[in-house]
Amino acid sequence: MQIIDGRRIAAEIKAEIRAEVEQLAAEGKRLPQLAAIIVGSDGASQTYVANKEKACGECGFKSQVLRFADSITEKELLDAIARLNADGEVDGFIVQLPLPRHISEQRVVEAIDPKKDVDGFHPVNVGRMTIGLPAYVSATPAGIKELLLRCGIATSGKRCVVLGRSNIVGRPLMNLLSQKDTPGDCTVTVCHSRTRNIKEICRTADIIVAALGSPEFLTADMVADGAVVIDVGTTRVPAADAKSGFRLKGDVKYDEVAPKCSYITPVPGGVGPMTIVSLMKNTLKAYKKEVYGS
Amino acid sequence: MQIIDGRRIAAEIKAEIRAEVEQLAAEGKRLPQLAAIIVGSDGASQTYVANKEKACGECGFKSQVLRFADSITEKELLDAIARLNADGEVDGFIVQLPLPRHISEQRVVEAIDPKKDVDGFHPVNVGRMTIGLPAYVSATPAGIKELLLRCGIATSGKRCVVLGRSNIVGRPLMNLLSQKDTPGDCTVTVCHSRTRNIKEICRTADIIVAALGSPEFLTADMVADGAVVIDVGTTRVPAADAKSGFRLKGDVKYDEVAPKCSYITPVPGGVGPMTIVSLMKNTLKAYKKEVYGS
Repeated sequence: MQIIDGRRIAAEIKAEIRAEVEQLAAEGKRLPQLAAIIVGSDGASQTYVANKEKACGECGFKSQVLRFADSITEKELLDAIARLNADGEVDGFIVQLPLPRHISEQRVVEAIDPKKDVDGFHPVNVGRMTIGLPAYVSATPAGIKELLLRCGIATSGKRCVVLGRSNIVGRPLMNLLSQKDTPGDCTVTVCHSRTRNIKEICRTADIIVAALGSPEFLTADMVADGAVVIDVGTTRVPAADAKSGFRLKGDVKYDEVAPKCSYITPVPGGVGPMTIVSLMKNTLKAYKKEVYGS
Repeated sequence: MQIIDGRRIAAEIKAEIRAEVEQLAAEGKRLPQLAAIIVGSDGASQTYVANKEKACGECGFKSQVLRFADSITEKELLDAIARLNADGEVDGFIVQLPLPRHISEQRVVEAIDPKKDVDGFHPVNVGRMTIGLPAYVSATPAGIKELLLRCGIATSGKRCVVLGRSNIVGRPLMNLLSQKDTPGDCTVTVCHSRTRNIKEICRTADIIVAALGSPEFLTADMVADGAVVIDVGTTRVPAADAKSGFRLKGDVKYDEVAPKCSYITPVPGGVGPMTIVSLMKNTLKAYKKEVYGS
């Protein structure tokens, strides 16, 4: 059994990006820049954006954060997005979700120029991803593909069960892993709240991606010997003995599942560290105009 | 065993559309209009477009066909698309594929205003369909959903195997049938050329959609008793005794599979008639601005 060390792989990729950016700097070129918009003062959102800024620093990118009060109107936010769309120094940007209720997240996401939509949430990017065209792929699915690739895990012809059909993890993964690609070419089954016989279906899988947000859902009796298990869950569970008062729990009952696996991602330290690094990769792609060519 | 009569259901829908259009006419309103662009003189394309024109007539729609020689430049074609995008009398339009090799199909599809893209091929519509937003869904998957709905076939929690991952049938279906919707909420598995144990997988299915384009691929030993079988295949197979010299073959070995099924679509007369009617439904949606609201 091999534990997939997401932290190590993420650090490796950041070092690769940094080397490329240092080369750009040495050539006197403009540096890549990621911008983030944050509305309100939600603690988790603040942390996420701070982590993204930190990662930009580690990669040698420029970054800027535009902060707005909860009271911002949708119009004002859309104007800010229009300015970033037009800003030749900003290669990509994100709008940290969730947004206050008086603002339509869908309208905001669709206002972002798809060429700068490094979160990959714009329907144009989702559509291009779905039909196999170059696209910005959202961070978690892109990070999982990267983990499979860097661990040399064979996927072609393998049975893959994706637990969860969310628009940011399960659904893109089912589209990506069923595509003629590497990693890809899997026979994918997507399971969700309405699925019956979920145990039996999981037991047929060579690869299981658990993205339900249901702590310790996947137990040993659901996993075939030698399976690859990717755990996307990160639920905060109260823990009296933890300094923070909580502990992150994955969707996999790790202690009993791990011994059966050929590969498994831990929580934390598996998929998590890969998500921010995927955003950095997308930003570099935007800088190099790799997705849209212009 | 019940044979799903696509011809009857398609005629029923056309009559519903016609009744709605006659009401519009009675109110003195502008009638819905579908336009089609056809390039070159490919026989099959001519037939498809002629059938679409005929269906427009049956529904009471206006229609127009713009015909161009093979020698048209991409620029000229894009200009024609821009004119249709701007034409307030045209609610939706299609560009009949394939196009001559010197023209990029992708560029052409992306030039169509998503609000008029009644074929549902534009990445914006694919993306919106993928994430469950209102969208124009391409004709064959939309027709299959309609058949399931009108036959009252329960789909929630059912295991559905989609054979084929094409961008126009298998992939949209896997996205649609796995969504929280009616019909939908299936546990979907998508199989393709790289899938192993395809027989065994098919035998677990409550619903099988065969969209491989491989005549008589699905045999009785691959189908569980009581399954619903939807046959999307339409391959022309030479037949000395047929007047045309060929016969349409589905992906299902009908004679042996049908007795095992609860429902089955024949070829021809099953899914086929539903595709054009789905295009008509999309055109009416475009007229009513149901998808984008403006």
